[in-house]
Amino acid sequence: MSLRFEILHTRGKARRGRLHTKHGVVDTPAFMPVGTCATVKAMMPESVAATGAQILLGNTYHLMLRPGADLVEKMGGLHKFMNWDKPILTDSGGFQVMSLSGLRKLSEEGVKFSSHIDGRQYFLSPEESIKIQHKLDSNITMCMDECVKLPASYETLKKSVEMSMRWAVRSKAAFVDRDGYGIFGIQQGGDNHDLRAYSAAELTKVGFDGYAIGGLAVGEGQETMFQVLDYAPQMLPADKPRYLMGVGRPDDIVGAVLRGVDMFDCVMPTRSGRTSQAFTARGTVNVRNARHREDPRPLEAECDCPLCRNYSRAYIHHLQKCNEVLAIMLLTWHNIRYYQRLMQGLRSAVESDTLEDFAADFYARQTAGDIEEI
Amino acid sequence: MSLRFEILHTRGKARRGRLHTKHGVVDTPAFMPVGTCATVKAMMPESVAATGAQILLGNTYHLMLRPGADLVEKMGGLHKFMNWDKPILTDSGGFQVMSLSGLRKLSEEGVKFSSHIDGRQYFLSPEESIKIQHKLDSNITMCMDECVKLPASYETLKKSVEMSMRWAVRSKAAFVDRDGYGIFGIQQGGDNHDLRAYSAAELTKVGFDGYAIGGLAVGEGQETMFQVLDYAPQMLPADKPRYLMGVGRPDDIVGAVLRGVDMFDCVMPTRSGRTSQAFTARGTVNVRNARHREDPRPLEAECDCPLCRNYSRAYIHHLQKCNEVLAIMLLTWHNIRYYQRLMQGLRSAVESDTLEDFAADFYARQTAGDIEEI
Repeated sequence: MSLRFEILHTRGKARRGRLHTKHGVVDTPAFMPVGTCATVKAMMPESVAATGAQILLGNTYHLMLRPGADLVEKMGGLHKFMNWDKPILTDSGGFQVMSLSGLRKLSEEGVKFSSHIDGRQYFLSPEESIKIQHKLDSNITMCMDECVKLPASYETLKKSVEMSMRWAVRSKAAFVDRDGYGIFGIQQGGDNHDLRAYSAAELTKVGFDGYAIGGLAVGEGQETMFQVLDYAPQMLPADKPRYLMGVGRPDDIVGAVLRGVDMFDCVMPTRSGRTSQAFTARGTVNVRNARHREDPRPLEAECDCPLCRNYSRAYIHHLQKCNEVLAIMLLTWHNIRYYQRLMQGLRSAVESDTLEDFAADFYARQTAGDIEEI
Repeated sequence: MSLRFEILHTRGKARRGRLHTKHGVVDTPAFMPVGTCATVKAMMPESVAATGAQILLGNTYHLMLRPGADLVEKMGGLHKFMNWDKPILTDSGGFQVMSLSGLRKLSEEGVKFSSHIDGRQYFLSPEESIKIQHKLDSNITMCMDECVKLPASYETLKKSVEMSMRWAVRSKAAFVDRDGYGIFGIQQGGDNHDLRAYSAAELTKVGFDGYAIGGLAVGEGQETMFQVLDYAPQMLPADKPRYLMGVGRPDDIVGAVLRGVDMFDCVMPTRSGRTSQAFTARGTVNVRNARHREDPRPLEAECDCPLCRNYSRAYIHHLQKCNEVLAIMLLTWHNIRYYQRLMQGLRSAVESDTLEDFAADFYARQTAGDIEEI
């Protein structure tokens, strides 16, 4: 295996780990900001690094359409193309094909689809996905799988997970092993315990550098997600990183870390930065709200991002009202920094055996009333 | 007088100067990026400073409407509100009222108008404009004047410049003198030599910390503008800074420095950053053009901005095609840096008595064919 993972400390099911890649280390539990089109929207890459982020997620679907994997390869790979020299994980593209693309036809072989940008026809298979991720020079390649929206019948889930496991074998076979690079399998099985166990066993037989938990955060709600996370992570090899795909809200992440998950990605901090939403210890705040108009205080006194260090709530409110680009820039930075501070807090809490206190305090503050009342 | 201006060196009509304000020095010839709504669009203020810009222009019209001068004052002034601790110059608001606002009525007293945002009624007079600029804590307050579009008849120009000179007296009377702050008069008179002379004489009688040349770059073309600049700057006191308002393109600036102008402002570098236009030594380049798609070279090898240091033309082309915010951020930074490098070059050339060579080289490169052929 070509990605080394150390577990430095555990507390209950939670783990404090360190993943070593060609482009540097990732301290876990880790949150990966999403850089869909070879940019974390509205952020300079050096600013993303300044938030404490050690790894980004890139989207194979978007990049294969624009600018194309061959061009990225020609430009020296995704790290060089987007000026990010730390680790990159890429998804397989399968999820976005099924949710974003036009006319598509799924078969055992793969999926035919048309681009949502210009209607051009493409074909994506496990082999093709792995090849594209190789061209992108992704440190962590993801298997191509099928993700079923919940709720779904047992038969639907079973048929799908079986195909995904065949695709996992094909993905692994197509992967070219290199030092500091690796491939993750993806557990499916929806909210069914036995199918999750089946999927974990199949993946473990193949053997991967890490294991993702897929098929959650797809409409089932936090309660069901946590029920699955009560057992699913423990079905996966204990000595490998576990990655919960597409999750999530801060309270989702805290709950998942308690249940043994090591890695996360979500568009929420970046997308919210473009819709006036700020994440804070007291929950989300809409800075467009008129109550901020004359408020000289920083958004969060305890935050060290440029928005909170250098500006008043009145200023960010003003920028939002004027639809200024700087509003998006500052809010995105704050939100990514909020997520990274949360992950730093979780890592410290695991290390110091205080995770339960940390989580209790986190949930108490989130529900204590919003930032206006501080 | 409360703003000290040193002339360090001259070469022909051109001057290398230094203006001292409460918030620091401004080396001239200087270009002021425009921060209309208390932000230089798509730039962090520390990034603006990193380009070499030593002074910003703020727009009184926009700020009086949103967030309002009283709020900015309450927040500690414009420097603190927008996190820019270097000098700020504000215009009077008069020009924008006449070009942007809704229903307006001009009289000797001032101008009644309705906001272009919400239709609310306002009244702006010389006294009111100076008061607002004081509340903003502007280092350089501009007199309120009337600016006539060219071509215009002698009678129109004469009537207007006479009122502007009465407004200059009222503006100066309303200005509260403070150490490190000053007020500039504005010469009007269109393209008429005698009216320019009359205006200069009237302003000099009142006495100002600096003198702007107004009423140019209003449709007359570069040839007429340079004809006026052949005589207008020399009508103004030699020991005070001369500021050509709203100018301009790089070639306008070089020509105006040769004719004795010290200060400039223009939205061009920032606005172009939002419309895919990059300024380069070889003229402007549209990075959206398909010829950049696979070009691994930096936009300008000799430029030290983040765009040129860290990215290929292929990457900025990709960002533009995807309408990514980072494209605006990087192009705006490049354009402001281009303008600041130009000003640094002009200052060095005056100092070293090589301005004619610098200008000849500048014009030769601008017309030598575009960047594709480098």
